[in-house]
Amino acid sequence: MWSLIILTILSFFAYLLTDELIPKLKSLFINAGLFGIDLCKVSKEKIPEAIGVISGCVFLITILLFIPIGFGNSLMDRGNFPHNEFAELLAALLSICCMLLLGFADDVLNLKWRYKLLLPTIASLPLLVVYYVNFNSTTFIVPIPLRQFFGISVNIGLLYYIYMGMLAVFCTNAINILAGINGLEVGQSVIIAMSIIFFDFIELSGDQYKAHNFSLHIMIPYLATTLALLKHNWYPSKVFVGDTFCYVSGMTFAVVGILSHFSKTVLLFFLPQIINFLYSVPQLFRIVPCPRHRLPKYSAETDLLQASRTVISKKDMSFLTKIVLQALTLLKLVDKIEDNDSIILNNLTLINLVLIKLGPMSEIQLTKTLLIFQFFCTCIAFLIRYPMASYFYDVNIYNLV
Amino acid sequence: MWSLIILTILSFFAYLLTDELIPKLKSLFINAGLFGIDLCKVSKEKIPEAIGVISGCVFLITILLFIPIGFGNSLMDRGNFPHNEFAELLAALLSICCMLLLGFADDVLNLKWRYKLLLPTIASLPLLVVYYVNFNSTTFIVPIPLRQFFGISVNIGLLYYIYMGMLAVFCTNAINILAGINGLEVGQSVIIAMSIIFFDFIELSGDQYKAHNFSLHIMIPYLATTLALLKHNWYPSKVFVGDTFCYVSGMTFAVVGILSHFSKTVLLFFLPQIINFLYSVPQLFRIVPCPRHRLPKYSAETDLLQASRTVISKKDMSFLTKIVLQALTLLKLVDKIEDNDSIILNNLTLINLVLIKLGPMSEIQLTKTLLIFQFFCTCIAFLIRYPMASYFYDVNIYNLV
Repeated sequence: MWSLIILTILSFFAYLLTDELIPKLKSLFINAGLFGIDLCKVSKEKIPEAIGVISGCVFLITILLFIPIGFGNSLMDRGNFPHNEFAELLAALLSICCMLLLGFADDVLNLKWRYKLLLPTIASLPLLVVYYVNFNSTTFIVPIPLRQFFGISVNIGLLYYIYMGMLAVFCTNAINILAGINGLEVGQSVIIAMSIIFFDFIELSGDQYKAHNFSLHIMIPYLATTLALLKHNWYPSKVFVGDTFCYVSGMTFAVVGILSHFSKTVLLFFLPQIINFLYSVPQLFRIVPCPRHRLPKYSAETDLLQASRTVISKKDMSFLTKIVLQALTLLKLVDKIEDNDSIILNNLTLINLVLIKLGPMSEIQLTKTLLIFQFFCTCIAFLIRYPMASYFYDVNIYNLV
Repeated sequence: MWSLIILTILSFFAYLLTDELIPKLKSLFINAGLFGIDLCKVSKEKIPEAIGVISGCVFLITILLFIPIGFGNSLMDRGNFPHNEFAELLAALLSICCMLLLGFADDVLNLKWRYKLLLPTIASLPLLVVYYVNFNSTTFIVPIPLRQFFGISVNIGLLYYIYMGMLAVFCTNAINILAGINGLEVGQSVIIAMSIIFFDFIELSGDQYKAHNFSLHIMIPYLATTLALLKHNWYPSKVFVGDTFCYVSGMTFAVVGILSHFSKTVLLFFLPQIINFLYSVPQLFRIVPCPRHRLPKYSAETDLLQASRTVISKKDMSFLTKIVLQALTLLKLVDKIEDNDSIILNNLTLINLVLIKLGPMSEIQLTKTLLIFQFFCTCIAFLIRYPMASYFYDVNIYNLV
């Protein structure tokens, strides 16, 4: 308990430090050519990019400084030092540090897609080894309605490790593709972080308290540094956070989900990101043409955003494209304008979906709408996790996986 | 033994990968504005900077991929998994990864000096905790001639941890200031790495074989990736390595020195860097004016390098400056031109010292001379470490610290 209080105080200072460093170091980023122009604003001033590296570094340093305190009692008694817990923390930090490096390198160098998929997989290796050594529970508990087919539990063995590796890749990229308007990347991460912290506090009294205690030790400094970043990234943004922030956030959530073994709950908190990913699939896999930027179109006259669009030439259309278009139309998930030669379609992102359903709106209103949706999904997640879990699972068993 | 053979094969592929990636990714760095002009060449073409991040990442990835293999046997038998050795490796990787990030951030953003001193100290924290938990030997064995004053051993307690933290800061910066001509940073690192590997192989049959085995597992992939970098950085350089490389190298040597507890031997291999640092002190602490660049002056007509110089105005000269100048003159360590108002002095680096002692020479000749000196210091180090150690120490006790 003391350990959490000290960590919270330390995190408060981390908040102050991040808040002070961001405006101070801004010019370094602009001088290095790390800046962007806000496409949804009239002003064309240079806004520093990749500022997530500052909050990420402070986050990492906070945990590093906390190590001697957190393991203080155990340090006195070296015979019983919890080597496995220490290795867990080191593996978590190593994975996060790798993503911080990769994210920053990506912001500076504009890496190709293959590196973005390959490197998080490799960065999650130490996590998987730690998981193997400390838990190696690769058993999925089967939901009650399906038990007549599969039995109570299914041991998926190696597949479970592939699932965890893919979780790291998914989380790191999922936040990155639900982005583009002021405050959205950081805002959604703050809501997810708060949801995890809330969940941890509920479970602290349960029999998995050790795992949730570990999770809190990662999430509290993460939340503190991210809140400081949000202050500067909120509409109208004075800094952009870059891929750096999205990668670090994604990996942090994946790390906590894997090592505290509640990865399914983390995925529930990622509902908007999962919806956005599934909705984006036709463009990500080039079944529908994908322009370089898919962010909404800004109209300087009205100061409102509206859905951006992509053009499909009718004569180049493949069979698969036709089926996907039909399905999307049937589900009323697209806004389609058709003429003789081509189909004009909104870009397939959750942001554009909100705009075609609710009509053009200001940037700040759009961010708030999406964050409210994120919060709403958290509520659903808790609903599934608690009242409904008893329908799918015997609650005690659920806790074990 | 098998583990070392597999690692060597893996490192060979790491060499090939680094060698292939460097020319392939060069343009990304130039496009990002990460390039420099070679001041010692006639041609003014853009040469990519901070390429050390490529070899550093491949180095890290090689060790990450090796983890499941290296701990393979232990993974089968999870009850006896060597958590402490695993934590050691993770702490080493974390420190190296932090320096990779810091170095790259420094290359991109040009960080201030205070960050360069502060961050390596923080990055070495997990190392120190691991050292505390796994060894906590803070006893220095006193050399025989001094034992009448201090006894056989002195326990310096906390001071030992401060010493180790400072070792990390020293190593990361020492390579960085003995730099500036083609191939020198990488060349010296290759010689130090080979010296450590040679030392490890000698000691593998001793009672500290575990520590030296650990050291080899870090140094072999380091050497492989660094050799690939040297190929492209050797005169005439097609790439520059940046602070990134110097920081990663320094931290790698510090990590190995600390965790394999032969930090004093590592310092012996750093003799040229120590000499360069001590010789630079008057300029580093601004007792003598220090221009932004201290690298030798290139003459396009002769294609030779000569010592670069700094000007001291006589009327601004402090008492301390006068004493330092007198001492340096007495020791014949400077080339001084004096007139009524000012003193013109060579910049105080080992590179310039070689030039004033041996006269102007070509860049490749200068690099080779300095690397021969580095090799010569390695020989001295082995002389001190083996034949002479018996004069200062009982050899068996020496091994323990």
